[in-house]
Amino acid sequence: MLRTIFLLSLLFALSNASVQDFCVANLKRAETPAGYPCIRPIHVKATDFVFSGLGTPGNTTNIINAAVTPAFAAQFPGLNGLGLSTARLDLAPKGVIPMHTHPGASEVLFVLTGSITAGFVSSANAVYVQTLKPGQVMVFPQGLLHFQINAGKSSASAVVTFNSANPGLQILDFALFANSLPAELVVGTTFLDATTVKKLKGVLGGTG
Amino acid sequence: MLRTIFLLSLLFALSNASVQDFCVANLKRAETPAGYPCIRPIHVKATDFVFSGLGTPGNTTNIINAAVTPAFAAQFPGLNGLGLSTARLDLAPKGVIPMHTHPGASEVLFVLTGSITAGFVSSANAVYVQTLKPGQVMVFPQGLLHFQINAGKSSASAVVTFNSANPGLQILDFALFANSLPAELVVGTTFLDATTVKKLKGVLGGTG
Amino acid sequence: MLRTIFLLSLLFALSNASVQDFCVANLKRAETPAGYPCIRPIHVKATDFVFSGLGTPGNTTNIINAAVTPAFAAQFPGLNGLGLSTARLDLAPKGVIPMHTHPGASEVLFVLTGSITAGFVSSANAVYVQTLKPGQVMVFPQGLLHFQINAGKSSASAVVTFNSANPGLQILDFALFANSLPAELVVGTTFLDATTVKKLKGVLGGTG
Amino acid sequence: MLRTIFLLSLLFALSNASVQDFCVANLKRAETPAGYPCIRPIHVKATDFVFSGLGTPGNTTNIINAAVTPAFAAQFPGLNGLGLSTARLDLAPKGVIPMHTHPGASEVLFVLTGSITAGFVSSANAVYVQTLKPGQVMVFPQGLLHFQINAGKSSASAVVTFNSANPGLQILDFALFANSLPAELVVGTTFLDATTVKKLKGVLGGTG
Amino acid sequence: MLRTIFLLSLLFALSNASVQDFCVANLKRAETPAGYPCIRPIHVKATDFVFSGLGTPGNTTNIINAAVTPAFAAQFPGLNGLGLSTARLDLAPKGVIPMHTHPGASEVLFVLTGSITAGFVSSANAVYVQTLKPGQVMVFPQGLLHFQINAGKSSASAVVTFNSANPGLQILDFALFANSLPAELVVGTTFLDATTVKKLKGVLGGTG
Amino acid sequence: MLRTIFLLSLLFALSNASVQDFCVANLKRAETPAGYPCIRPIHVKATDFVFSGLGTPGNTTNIINAAVTPAFAAQFPGLNGLGLSTARLDLAPKGVIPMHTHPGASEVLFVLTGSITAGFVSSANAVYVQTLKPGQVMVFPQGLLHFQINAGKSSASAVVTFNSANPGLQILDFALFANSLPAELVVGTTFLDATTVKKLKGVLGGTG
Repeated sequence: MLRTIFLLSLLFALSNASVQDFCVANLKRAETPAGYPCIRPIHVKATDFVFSGLGTPGNTTNIINAAVTPAFAAQFPGLNGLGLSTARLDLAPKGVIPMHTHPGASEVLFVLTGSITAGFVSSANAVYVQTLKPGQVMVFPQGLLHFQINAGKSSASAVVTFNSANPGLQILDFALFANSLPAELVVGTTFLDATTVKKLKGVLGGTG
Repeated sequence: MLRTIFLLSLLFALSNASVQDFCVANLKRAETPAGYPCIRPIHVKATDFVFSGLGTPGNTTNIINAAVTPAFAAQFPGLNGLGLSTARLDLAPKGVIPMHTHPGASEVLFVLTGSITAGFVSSANAVYVQTLKPGQVMVFPQGLLHFQINAGKSSASAVVTFNSANPGLQILDFALFANSLPAELVVGTTFLDATTVKKLKGVLGGTG
Repeated sequence: MLRTIFLLSLLFALSNASVQDFCVANLKRAETPAGYPCIRPIHVKATDFVFSGLGTPGNTTNIINAAVTPAFAAQFPGLNGLGLSTARLDLAPKGVIPMHTHPGASEVLFVLTGSITAGFVSSANAVYVQTLKPGQVMVFPQGLLHFQINAGKSSASAVVTFNSANPGLQILDFALFANSLPAELVVGTTFLDATTVKKLKGVLGGTG
Repeated sequence: MLRTIFLLSLLFALSNASVQDFCVANLKRAETPAGYPCIRPIHVKATDFVFSGLGTPGNTTNIINAAVTPAFAAQFPGLNGLGLSTARLDLAPKGVIPMHTHPGASEVLFVLTGSITAGFVSSANAVYVQTLKPGQVMVFPQGLLHFQINAGKSSASAVVTFNSANPGLQILDFALFANSLPAELVVGTTFLDATTVKKLKGVLGGTG
Repeated sequence: MLRTIFLLSLLFALSNASVQDFCVANLKRAETPAGYPCIRPIHVKATDFVFSGLGTPGNTTNIINAAVTPAFAAQFPGLNGLGLSTARLDLAPKGVIPMHTHPGASEVLFVLTGSITAGFVSSANAVYVQTLKPGQVMVFPQGLLHFQINAGKSSASAVVTFNSANPGLQILDFALFANSLPAELVVGTTFLDATTVKKLKGVLGGTG
Repeated sequence: MLRTIFLLSLLFALSNASVQDFCVANLKRAETPAGYPCIRPIHVKATDFVFSGLGTPGNTTNIINAAVTPAFAAQFPGLNGLGLSTARLDLAPKGVIPMHTHPGASEVLFVLTGSITAGFVSSANAVYVQTLKPGQVMVFPQGLLHFQINAGKSSASAVVTFNSANPGLQILDFALFANSLPAELVVGTTFLDATTVKKLKGVLGGTG
């Protein structure tokens, strides 16, 4: 009995020594360059480390016939500070995750269902494209333009993981055509002509 | 035509400027603290970024009724230096991935099929356990003891991803009982008695 | 005189340019993934960079005949953000620092007095054990199971240093037996039998 | 005299203790994920830390009326491993550094001469554009699409610096139109029509 | 129309997924080891990423005939968390940036005007000195003593960039002579004699 | 028996999955920015993780009455890549570790014997000095000028640890006076006069 008491005081001392194996995000507090401040360990529950939003397909009834369902720190506070995040891709027939980059992370893709043609272009302008079946894995190095296309006639899906809790996602078409970037700057900084740029700004809801 | 030539020389110059978006491992060369030396970019193919070994279940006819199929840098040289790796877990009925740690990485688990009870213990000795269904995700902070158990009556499987190309894997029972660590040191550094230790050393093939 | 004034304004400007050589922890504020917020530099004193708690042996009258006295960020706020921490080990005769890991740091041990048998097990399940005398140093790679045992008949002590201000400390026996982790999960994820697990839960104060 | 000898042996011992303040690249050796292997310190000269290729304007007689002259690790081996690189931008009248990203680095731009309109688009699709005069500085966060345009009637130039010795450079138009990426994949992953894509592949020398 | 709506909801969802490409500093909040907390993205403006204070020479009417104008996180909040900062050096005739270190960053220097003799000393006590002309670049490895001297008869200037938003700046003479460090400690820790130390403490405004 | 075979093949597979918990330096191979290449795991022995050179005092019969005995990667190959190193300080009566910096690491000092006055100066030019007794710990932030002086009448000693396997060591006096840095550059970049500089160059064996 006495030994147990000794033990428990030892354990108590040691437990206090290390309070930050994890840092569940307090999303109400201002972010820092390393992520959100942590909620107090006493308030952390097992469910904070579980995310249930990737179990069902995202809504693909949209212009790209596809959906990206993110589980980044903002959706899944439990992975704040842990250097990892994940997302689900759903591709209806003809679905496409358009050309995009993740500014702050490399990505691993695991095909769940269907067939997906995926690829990336390197800084040296080399092209790496492969068509993947369920269970196949492809890695996309940090910050490079890449894409995923449904290569089959039925739906396809994949789970992707990033080595950052906040990898970012910049979709090329949206960056060019779906915001206030003036059309003349888009024309001026690409080889696209003004007619094309204005048409796509119209389609994608951009202004300027 | 002339413009194209100008362009191509520009492109050529720029391409040469950055040759290391990625670093496909040359496994024949000695590792460095940051990973394997790279093969020359000229020899890199699209298939270097694809790994096909996770598409089929691992062999679970073993003492744990389970299998871990790794796609770390040694198996999947394309992710060398990219700070990511992945693996597949297969759990037959009653299958267990025993208590283990990854010394150098946090982990995200995505349940593919079946039902899995997973958990980890923190430095503060708090316990976080959840039973997960397909599509659910759980995160395991770096270096902590954790486990996965088949919680259903049929097979279960999951894909896990790590934020290191070389996360390591230390299975507790193997570290204690399946090597040359002398039995008296195991007894001395745990609360297990000598009979238990010797029995398990026998079961797991340890010496000493 | 005028030159001095010029100088002082220059110095003042430069001093303002860099306010974060260090970041003494404000332990009352919520942690972030990179550590505690800093107290204002104006409030920092020389004594914030000194810790006096390691000068006397810890209390070894306990079940392990040993003590770990940590000087991590929570005890020693001056090393918050500096990527280092330290601790003192005291081992009475028969004292043992049981099998444990530091999830987020490598460790260097320097023997102060006595004789200590220390060792670790690698991911590849290799065993590295040595008996050390005063002045000898041993390094333990990040996240691996390791231990220290008094190898002599008198007391032994050591100072250990970690490359993290918050290295964590997970003691194997405590993680398995001294918390609410249900006995059947311990049995299920180790090769230990239920009798052993329940007995140790009793000894170490675990529930479940 | 004797003291000097004592001193020199001390100095010699200490000097040997730390041989890697820097790591001038041996470009003939295979890269590693952390950069090129180092040449021996004994062979390092002061000129290894100096790069003279940015003193004169690059050749802007090309399709973009602009030039990027890199001083990355491949051109300037002295900054290998130091986490920094630099480049010079030259923009003739109407010159443009087209939409591009640096996959592995943030960038600071300092305008040397002329007037430059620069901007970037964030992951949240916000647009940040400014017209800069000599001496003004603009920062571009890692991995985001950005551009620079000559905003005046005379030549403009700038020096840019990256927080990586190998920041990479991916020019959007080249990634889409100046390589072997099949036209149907470009069409499929952007909102551009086939006619536009094929025309630009022709202009920029792409195949497929 | 409907497609655009679908698109916009997709875009909206994705935009929310990644809110931290950047972290403009809220200088009123306490720093963390990774930098200042961020202002809310909604309040970020294009001008936050621009700094205009380096366009004009600093005031060199002082004891060193030189000026360092920093654009670190404290002056240029837009680069908080981005791992980069910059500064301008102005050297009147006979101007000197005295021996100094940046404790937390490597540095690249680009000469704007005039002629500058710059150099650093390595841990192995090797000396690397060069005289630089406009457009030449020199790199200074992290934490080493270095200096810049006007090597010509007219003014000289340079822009320097660091791979940290908060590189620090420790000027040797100020550290030794312009603060409260007791003269006997300066004498005791250098080979300087008491007369020299006291004289310089007087010149540079030190006490003690 | 069959189960053991199953187990062993599982163990074998897993062991192969992670070969780099550590990276014992092959000092004969060229360094990389991340450290030395590793020797093959098969050749690693327990003694590679032990260093015995700090058990006896260094030779203090020299101009500073002190000795620094390093256990950096070059002396202690086992800590290559592990982000830690250590050293022993010995201070005879009147002994001094003169003003110095470690360009690449923070430092923790633990006093073994005697009494030591230690201090550092911050970028903001604040002075932090304390006199320490055995068992007291002081931390020195990365890259800042600091010193240790024997504060008692008998010998003193300490063990210091760094959060880098290769922290570097730049002793101020040696950098200024014990190398080929021309005297006029020393004079020009400090407030020291030529007579003092030349005298100290003589004492410390410098040229130029």
